[in-house]
Amino acid sequence: MQNFDYMTPTRLIFGKDVIVKLPEVMEKFGKKILLTYGGGSIKKIGLYDKVKELLSGFEIYELSGIQPNPKYDPSVMDGVRICKEEDINVILAVGGGSVLDCSKAIAAGACYDGDPWDLISYKVKAQAALPIVDIITLAATGSEYDCGGVISRTETNDKIGYMDPHLFPAVSFLDPTYTFTVSKKQTAAGCADAMNHIMEQYFCEDSSILNDGFMEAGFKSLMTNAKKCLENPEDYTARAEMMLTCTYGCNGIYALGNSQTGWPCHGMEHALSAYYDITHGEGLAIITPRWMKHILTEKTVGRFVKYGVNVFGIDASLDRFEIANRAIDATYKFFESIGIPMHLREVGIDESRIGEMAHHVAVNEGLEHAWAPLLEEDIAKIFTDSL
Amino acid sequence: MQNFDYMTPTRLIFGKDVIVKLPEVMEKFGKKILLTYGGGSIKKIGLYDKVKELLSGFEIYELSGIQPNPKYDPSVMDGVRICKEEDINVILAVGGGSVLDCSKAIAAGACYDGDPWDLISYKVKAQAALPIVDIITLAATGSEYDCGGVISRTETNDKIGYMDPHLFPAVSFLDPTYTFTVSKKQTAAGCADAMNHIMEQYFCEDSSILNDGFMEAGFKSLMTNAKKCLENPEDYTARAEMMLTCTYGCNGIYALGNSQTGWPCHGMEHALSAYYDITHGEGLAIITPRWMKHILTEKTVGRFVKYGVNVFGIDASLDRFEIANRAIDATYKFFESIGIPMHLREVGIDESRIGEMAHHVAVNEGLEHAWAPLLEEDIAKIFTDSL
Repeated sequence: MQNFDYMTPTRLIFGKDVIVKLPEVMEKFGKKILLTYGGGSIKKIGLYDKVKELLSGFEIYELSGIQPNPKYDPSVMDGVRICKEEDINVILAVGGGSVLDCSKAIAAGACYDGDPWDLISYKVKAQAALPIVDIITLAATGSEYDCGGVISRTETNDKIGYMDPHLFPAVSFLDPTYTFTVSKKQTAAGCADAMNHIMEQYFCEDSSILNDGFMEAGFKSLMTNAKKCLENPEDYTARAEMMLTCTYGCNGIYALGNSQTGWPCHGMEHALSAYYDITHGEGLAIITPRWMKHILTEKTVGRFVKYGVNVFGIDASLDRFEIANRAIDATYKFFESIGIPMHLREVGIDESRIGEMAHHVAVNEGLEHAWAPLLEEDIAKIFTDSL
Repeated sequence: MQNFDYMTPTRLIFGKDVIVKLPEVMEKFGKKILLTYGGGSIKKIGLYDKVKELLSGFEIYELSGIQPNPKYDPSVMDGVRICKEEDINVILAVGGGSVLDCSKAIAAGACYDGDPWDLISYKVKAQAALPIVDIITLAATGSEYDCGGVISRTETNDKIGYMDPHLFPAVSFLDPTYTFTVSKKQTAAGCADAMNHIMEQYFCEDSSILNDGFMEAGFKSLMTNAKKCLENPEDYTARAEMMLTCTYGCNGIYALGNSQTGWPCHGMEHALSAYYDITHGEGLAIITPRWMKHILTEKTVGRFVKYGVNVFGIDASLDRFEIANRAIDATYKFFESIGIPMHLREVGIDESRIGEMAHHVAVNEGLEHAWAPLLEEDIAKIFTDSL
């Protein structure tokens, strides 16, 4: 077990109708709120009106139109400008991981005099951030329980994951009923994103009985509950279990003390969605089984055996590589079964920019230091295998 | 899944030699420290000297002699007095759960003008507490990651578990090497305590795939690693896994959203150790299998089946009650195998005060509301079966 230093101070208020606590929560932070959200789905489900009604005694400024793979310009820049001009006390992010990630960048940028990109690109370390409260409407990224975010900068094809301990949300509201209307496509993509978050921590040099069991339960929870959510979008228990399993995805709790893995699939997928703006979870689902096949060696086979036996119930007496290959195939088939397009061509990516993307990943993501190291040619091969 | 409101803001600094971070951690809270500890084991392992050396620039006051089942008088009272007289900034608890529990009561009492028992007995709600840092030397209670403590008041045979969100440790240092010298008796008792913490959350009306898998991994981790620690007390990995598995025991993370269980074994054991001052983990191990047998009914059998199949690998095709009984027997045999005396008589308790203790539990612990409700006669029966 490796040494670690862990803290997640976020308060989780979870369950049906918990939003009634919103006013008393916001009150502690001040009266001037920047309300951030995306394309209007929160209006369709009545959540926007509910929030405005609950916060009628507050002074609310709005930043809407935050896109998936949230953009530095205009979203982050606009948000920072409003916070500074209006002297905002607290950001209330209502939506999925993209809205929250964008809000984190705004929260840090609002307390910094220079270009917020300095913070996102780690040129400068944040010294403070505005407090963030969120109401999550999509089970996927786990941003509601971690201190990181991913921001895209279109002109440079950069999609950067940045982390800073100032960026833990102070309070996250998680009401599973807000995810009842999430489309089948986004439900499946959210599941794939969360599956991959656990994989990025599971496939490592060593682990413990505790962490392995926790993560294997996470895989099983996601697979079982995603199917239930697709069959019956208003299955409260399935939506709730899905939501909690996703929440733990990125704050480290699934694997405290595990050795580092390098998060290779996220490193590769960030290029795909930076160059082509595809749905992050779909990109992950497409490349994950190809990455697994590519890194399957004598060194890694043991972890795939454990994964295959404990998650998919594959017969432990089979040959190790047979178990591993069956586990990888089962992973592919699971993603396919929940309706994810499993080829890059299906999401509009052809071979034309693979070399460029592989180079970008090799230069920027440090995957030569991953548990199963990936060089530029490995990355290009995985992209090509994914076509 | 039930609604919940969860937060654990404690920072965990875990691993070998992490204590070097102690000065920078303490610096944030101020210069005047109350150092609390127990009977001197921290001196034997050199930890006392190490702490004093690292904190040479601080002003340190000491409260030593804190006993297992820590006492309101003199320990809590003395600690509160020192904090008030010396205007202490922060408490540094070095030891096991008893030292930390006592320190929590002191931290709250130091910020309250009246009798600290008002806070412990919930007569008055704490409005503040001194910050607490701890260095844990025993894997057992999980007090390093929760906001609760248990305090005994000898003259009234009260042993009260109290909780308050002000009492989360700010920082917990967990170095598994400090547990290398823990005796076989205390290693086993710590394991039993932590096993029971998970059981108190596992045996409930409903659960999720995620929580069940997490808790089942917790059981397996404790059983496997306790045996390794007993065989080789300096097995770093086993001590480390044991420590982390115990840490999660009481802050709720194992079972967020599960329905409440009432923590019946803790309710009953508190009477045993209040009346007879026995080792808490041993008391729990003795009564747990008897409690299980007593509550095994058509209503509860399903959870015991899950426990038996997933934790002990019992054949799932057997009759449900057969599986449940085998699981209960396996629990008993596990505790016996790690050297725990499995009869109350072996720890000095006979039938003479069973009626009195059962009455005390029935009046004070609310176990008629537990998942499997226990009335005074049930409690007396479980105690008698445990003789």
